[in-house]
This record gives sequence, structure tokens and C-alpha cells, in this order.
Amino acid sequence: MLEELKKEVYEANMLLPKYGLVVFTWGNVSGIDRESGLFVIKPSGVDYDKLSPEDMVVVDLEGNKVEGKYRPSSDTATHAVLYQRFPEVGGIVHTHSSWATSWAQAGRDIPCYGTTHADYLRGAIPCVRNLSDEELEDYEKNTGILIAEDFEKRKIDYNATPAVLCKNHGPFTWGKDAHEAVHNSVVLEEVAKMAARCESIHPGNEEAPQNLQDKHYFRKHGANAYYGQN
Amino acid sequence: MLEELKKEVYEANMLLPKYGLVVFTWGNVSGIDRESGLFVIKPSGVDYDKLSPEDMVVVDLEGNKVEGKYRPSSDTATHAVLYQRFPEVGGIVHTHSSWATSWAQAGRDIPCYGTTHADYLRGAIPCVRNLSDEELEDYEKNTGILIAEDFEKRKIDYNATPAVLCKNHGPFTWGKDAHEAVHNSVVLEEVAKMAARCESIHPGNEEAPQNLQDKHYFRKHGANAYYGQN
Amino acid sequence: MLEELKKEVYEANMLLPKYGLVVFTWGNVSGIDRESGLFVIKPSGVDYDKLSPEDMVVVDLEGNKVEGKYRPSSDTATHAVLYQRFPEVGGIVHTHSSWATSWAQAGRDIPCYGTTHADYLRGAIPCVRNLSDEELEDYEKNTGILIAEDFEKRKIDYNATPAVLCKNHGPFTWGKDAHEAVHNSVVLEEVAKMAARCESIHPGNEEAPQNLQDKHYFRKHGANAYYGQN
Amino acid sequence: MLEELKKEVYEANMLLPKYGLVVFTWGNVSGIDRESGLFVIKPSGVDYDKLSPEDMVVVDLEGNKVEGKYRPSSDTATHAVLYQRFPEVGGIVHTHSSWATSWAQAGRDIPCYGTTHADYLRGAIPCVRNLSDEELEDYEKNTGILIAEDFEKRKIDYNATPAVLCKNHGPFTWGKDAHEAVHNSVVLEEVAKMAARCESIHPGNEEAPQNLQDKHYFRKHGANAYYGQN
Repeated sequence: MLEELKKEVYEANMLLPKYGLVVFTWGNVSGIDRESGLFVIKPSGVDYDKLSPEDMVVVDLEGNKVEGKYRPSSDTATHAVLYQRFPEVGGIVHTHSSWATSWAQAGRDIPCYGTTHADYLRGAIPCVRNLSDEELEDYEKNTGILIAEDFEKRKIDYNATPAVLCKNHGPFTWGKDAHEAVHNSVVLEEVAKMAARCESIHPGNEEAPQNLQDKHYFRKHGANAYYGQN
Repeated sequence: MLEELKKEVYEANMLLPKYGLVVFTWGNVSGIDRESGLFVIKPSGVDYDKLSPEDMVVVDLEGNKVEGKYRPSSDTATHAVLYQRFPEVGGIVHTHSSWATSWAQAGRDIPCYGTTHADYLRGAIPCVRNLSDEELEDYEKNTGILIAEDFEKRKIDYNATPAVLCKNHGPFTWGKDAHEAVHNSVVLEEVAKMAARCESIHPGNEEAPQNLQDKHYFRKHGANAYYGQN
Repeated sequence: MLEELKKEVYEANMLLPKYGLVVFTWGNVSGIDRESGLFVIKPSGVDYDKLSPEDMVVVDLEGNKVEGKYRPSSDTATHAVLYQRFPEVGGIVHTHSSWATSWAQAGRDIPCYGTTHADYLRGAIPCVRNLSDEELEDYEKNTGILIAEDFEKRKIDYNATPAVLCKNHGPFTWGKDAHEAVHNSVVLEEVAKMAARCESIHPGNEEAPQNLQDKHYFRKHGANAYYGQN
Repeated sequence: MLEELKKEVYEANMLLPKYGLVVFTWGNVSGIDRESGLFVIKPSGVDYDKLSPEDMVVVDLEGNKVEGKYRPSSDTATHAVLYQRFPEVGGIVHTHSSWATSWAQAGRDIPCYGTTHADYLRGAIPCVRNLSDEELEDYEKNTGILIAEDFEKRKIDYNATPAVLCKNHGPFTWGKDAHEAVHNSVVLEEVAKMAARCESIHPGNEEAPQNLQDKHYFRKHGANAYYGQN
């Protein structure tokens, strides 16, 4: 069942330790098959070096397991909601990567200080608020709902800003497929690191001018993009 | 004598350089056999790349060597006291890992700023005071006593908070066995790193809300845990 | 066509990941053949681990492609202008290396705090201003012009200070050939890292005395140099 | 000539890149044969991966080359003076290792904040002043003289504090032989890193209590040492 997708999601999961984004099992990647409405996700708490493609778990959009010998990631319900609310997303990543998590713990949006950020992400990377006692009762699901609502309220285009920080927790990123979602996790971690250092080098630093942000974003995205070979 | 435990403690010791927690010989792991009341510990000052399972030293709960060609770790008396005072502990680690040691040198408890911390450790990680001149006469033993008394005085459950910082010195961690104790050392170092960066990103940062700390701790611990495969 | 130069530029490009100066494709190296007035540059957006010498693109000093199956780096026009304005330069590098980029995002010149800096670079490493809306219309070309004008205006000798930061973007470095340009990128990153840490250790730190800067620069450069074997 | 010592000094030099203490050729190790009054040192500006034992240069205590195909390190005169003034020293290291150099650039002594420091180095690690114009005329020799005079003036025992920072430049360390000198360079870098982080975690932090510093130093040194196997 969805063997191709399992392989793809497995490989994307294995990129997390490769890029230094995870310690132990602190991360998970999923990828969706939009036709069947099913997605594939890492099993909960299984070591990366013991993982194989057939260990991936198939789940429906309510977060119910459809196939697999293991229990799916404990964050499955967050992935499910994001797939529902962000219909063009094909892959999702959650990690505790250290710089992005430090910003999440600090409860701050990451300002766009430069073109490395602007090349991939429009505007600041939002940090969403803590959940209430009531919301915590269905923690993972409500985390997804909170992210989607925050993007709506702040009018952030999830395709143009494929990353979010959850306060006192850590980041989620997404993309057109699992690999692009991991790519965006790497970008986020690099951007988070440089933003922190940049503020330490220049307290009170201002965001990059909007025209430079636009220039770089549209070098890589949209009809007039001229970066790369396509 | 205790060959299985020696192998286990040896392997746990070898994880310290693997995870980047030690420079030279600046660390040691022990594991206890509760039935015999004996524990096994790294020999003092022997290089990790020259270590073998049979080099491990067997010691009793007074810290006296029972078997082994080498002298045991100079921190053996601290381990012995902790095994006495923390009866459910099966393994103990001491390192000078750089972020945790920086907090120890700073003399501060590590506040719980996020779920990475809360997943493993209840509340702040305590930093115990310096020893008095008199206490320093039996330095390693009194270090263990001070840790145990500090946990009692502050009503910290050593099973729920398996880590401590000794002021101007460095961390100890523990767990149900030597491997879990090393696991907790890795967690501590990561948590210490992110807490320092988080404060630098947001001076005056507040701890994670208690309800989120509880949620994450009990996702992984206790009767209602649902993280992982068990 | 220019096969020797392609090989050299290819090898210099491959040093960027080796020295940890790039993530993904965030960097490019070029080298010029002054006789023909043509230069060779990395293709745009192609992964380093898929690169080979024959993938290098030959370009003229107007930035027009002369030979190659790929589109040249999107930063080609900046390289072209720098080759025009800095006639003794033989190789140019652009990266988003994290410490240098953090300074660029902070919009600050890097002060000369020590001999590591002074050994290679005369005086502070300049950070040039943002481009205007109008200048952004021909972004890459005007970036090159801005750099050259800034060096002229501030009377900085590009041979003695082979590095620059572009505000909110990142660094360019150069040298007598592609390899020396990469060498200078490594130096810049190291110098940027130590300058940031040094300011954090000593807020309000002052630059190294001019006589020490001179001493070190001329140990390695000019008629009286006595460092190395030549 | 001195083949055994050349091999030893070569191996000690090769530890510098292994421990991440050098970029390019930014470091050098020497070792002395006290009987003949000759010492062996790395050649100037030769890449570590091209080095072999026979490339080592033999020099007398005036810094004159006695044997070798290469020119000796440009810092040879500093080594020579230190061997003269510190008669029990058997090996010397100079690097631009990044944390120690950041402190040197900041012009500050490194306070003793913990036992990692106290285990190896008595008291603060001194940072010596800049040289005057006149002193710069014989730069390397006067660097050595300044270090020796500073230790005398401050009554620092060079055997107990085998490290120094030269303002706006970088560190020198020494030991009973070349390997111990490298060992102390690793310690210094680790101590410098943790001291900087510790101050950032706790601005206004105080040094470790003297009794704890004494306890740790004498666990490892002197007649009553009980660390290790000897």
C-alpha cells in the first residue's frame, strides 16, 4: 500500500539525522497521497538507524491508522489537520532542531533579516501562542488548528511561508512533498541561527528592506524566477 | 564477576565520546547490580580509545574496590552515595559536557523553557551550592550527599528529574540503567544549549506554562503515556 | 574551451562544501582567463554533489553565456562587474556562510580585532549599503557596481582587502585565482566568527593597534614578507 | 639528527587539525632536547596534510636554523625565548584556535570559573599587553620576553599555568613535552569556550571558590594527587 510514498517518506525521514536536525527520535516527516486522502508518517519513538521503508505507517486525514505494524508518530494529529487546512501541502516535518527550537522557546517570530530567509520564506516566520487548558485536552489536533488559524488571522500564505514555530515547543515546516518539507527545515534552522547571531552582533537590528526581500523571493519563485535551471 | 554489567557499562562509557559529551577522559559512567549491592565504573583517567569491558572496576556501596586491575574513577564516592540515596537509580553519568558545565559554572538552575526539557525532566534542573571547607575534606562523598539533600529539601523527585548541576563543576545524570543515564546526559546538554540561546534571543524569557510541561511529561511517562511503541 | 580553468573552478567550487561554507547550492565560485576576457562560473542551482568540471559555464565580461549546457549562476553579473572594476582579480566567491552573513544581516563592517584578520585583510571588512528601488531593477550588476564604488569612495585597496559584505545579503571574496578566493572566504568566516565572540566577551572592544595590524600584514605580504617558504 | 624528537613533534603538530585547533597553517608545535639545547619546530606555512617528520626544522636557542630543508615557523623566536626563560618546559604550541583567540582579541584574562579549568591551570589565564612600536621591531622575540616578564611580574608559576593569551593575537601553551603542550591547547580552548558561555548565561559571574580550585588542582597534581593510575 502506497509503497512508493513510503519509500519517499522513509528517505525524507533519514535526511533529518543527516542534516543534524534531530537528536534521538525527536522529529518526524510525513507525505500525503492526495488522491486517496491517506498520508504516510514515521512510527512513534523508533530510532532512525532501525527504520526501514516498511515501518512507515499509513494514516487517514482523521489521524486513524490504516496500515502498519507500528503506532504512528504522536504528532500525527497535527499533521492530519495541516493536510486538511493547507490543501496544497504534500509533506510535513516536525523537529526539535536547536536554533529554531530556541526561537520557539523564546516565543518570538523570526524577523526576515536577509536574503537567505527571503529566498525561501515571505516575511517573518510566525510563532504561535500557547494552547489553553481546554485546547491541551486534544493537544496535537489543536496544535494544527492553532497554526492554521494563526496563518488565516495574520493573512500569511502557507505556500509562501512554509514554516511555523509553536511557542515553548518547536518548529513545523512543509512543502510540495516530504523532501521539500525537509529542505525547508534545513533552511529554517540556518535562518534561525543567523537571525540570533545577527541580533547579538547588532542589537536593535532592522528587517531587510521589503524591496530586497521581494527581489530575492521572486528570483526563485513565480513566473519571473530566474534562479536554477528551470 | 558481573561480566554482563561490565559490558553494558563499558558500552555506555563509549557513548560519551560518540555523543560529543567528553574531551579526553572528562567523564565516567557506572551501573549497579542491586542484588549484590556492587556497581561497575570506569577506571580513573584511562583514555576512551584504550578502554575495554574488562577494564571496568567493581566497587561496593562504600566506594571500596572489589575487583579490577585499575583504580576506579576519582568520582566513585559520589556515585556510591547517589546509589545509596536514590534507590531506584541503576546507572549514573558524570561529564564536563560544555553547555551543561557552562550553566554549572554560572551557578544557575536551568529553567524549563520548552517541551524538549519537559519531555524528560520535571521542572528546572537544580544547581547545587558549593561545598564548605569542611565538606571539601571528603569532596566526592559530600558532593553526593549535597545532591541528595538538595533534592530532598527542594522536594524534587529524582526519578522525574534525573539530572543535577554541581556549582562551578559540572553535571551528573542518572537513569534506570547506564544507557538511560547517558541518554539523559545527551538530553541535558541539548536542553542546556537551547536554554542559553533562548535567553539570549529573549532576555527575561519565562518558563513554559505548567500545563504544557505536564502534557509533554505525561505523553512519555506514567500510566497514560502514548509516545513510542509500548 | 578553457578546460584547465573549468577544472580549477570546479575544484574551487567543491571546496565550499568541504570547508562548511555552503548549505545546498548557496554559493558559487568563478575564475577568469584575462587573456580572452572570459570567465568560468558554477551553473545556477545545481547541487555540489552532482557537479563536474564540464558543467562549468563560460561567460564574457558582459555576463553573456559563451559556452555550457547550463544557465550560469544567478550572481554572474556581479562577478562580471567585479572582474571589470578589479582588474587584478583572478577568482571570485559568493557564499551565505553563516558568520559572515550574520554580520551582513547586521549591516556592520567587521572591525579588525586581531592578527588572524590582519594577516589577510587590511583594516575593517566593509559592509556596503542596500540598493535603491531603481538599482534593484538590475540587481546583480548594480551589486557589483556598488561594491566597486564603495571601495573607491572609502579608498580601500581591493588587493589588500579581498572581501566585502552586502547588507542583508552576504559576502563576496576574491583573490589572484579561484582557489585563493575560496581561501579568503574561509578566512573571512573565521574572522567574522571570532569578531562576534570577541564583542560578546568584551562589549566595547577596540580594534587591534595599527602597528600590530601592519606588522602581521607585512609578515605575509610585500617585499619584506618572511612567512612561509617563498 | 634528533629523529625521535622530529617524529614526536610531527605527531604533536598533526594533533592540531585533529582537535580542530587550526585552520590552514595557523599553528605550530615545537619540542626541545634539553641536553643539546636544540629544539624542533614545524616549518613556516607548510600545509598539515603535506607534512612529514623529516620536514621538521632543527633550531638552536637563539632561533637559528641548525638543520632542515625548510624555513622554521615565523614564530620560532617566541618559542626560543620561552625555552630559555621557562627551563622546565619541553614543548610549546601556538594556534589561532577560535575561542582562545576571541578572548585574546578581547584583551581579557580568562577567569577560573570551574573545575575543568582548575584541573589543569592555576588561577586566571593571563592575557599580556600589546607590544610597543619599538618592541614590534623584533616582534617574535619580544613576544616571548613579554610573556616571561608578565609571568614574573604577576608571580605566576609557568608550570602551574601553562597557557597565555597575547592581546589581539592568540594563545601559546606549553608542557613537559610537545604532546602535553597540545593537550593544554585543547584544555584552553574548551575552558575559553565555557567561560564565554558562562558569562553570557550569568553576567557578572564570579570565579570558582579558591578551595574548590585547590581541591581539583591537587587531585591531579603534586604529591597527594589521586586522579588517574599513577
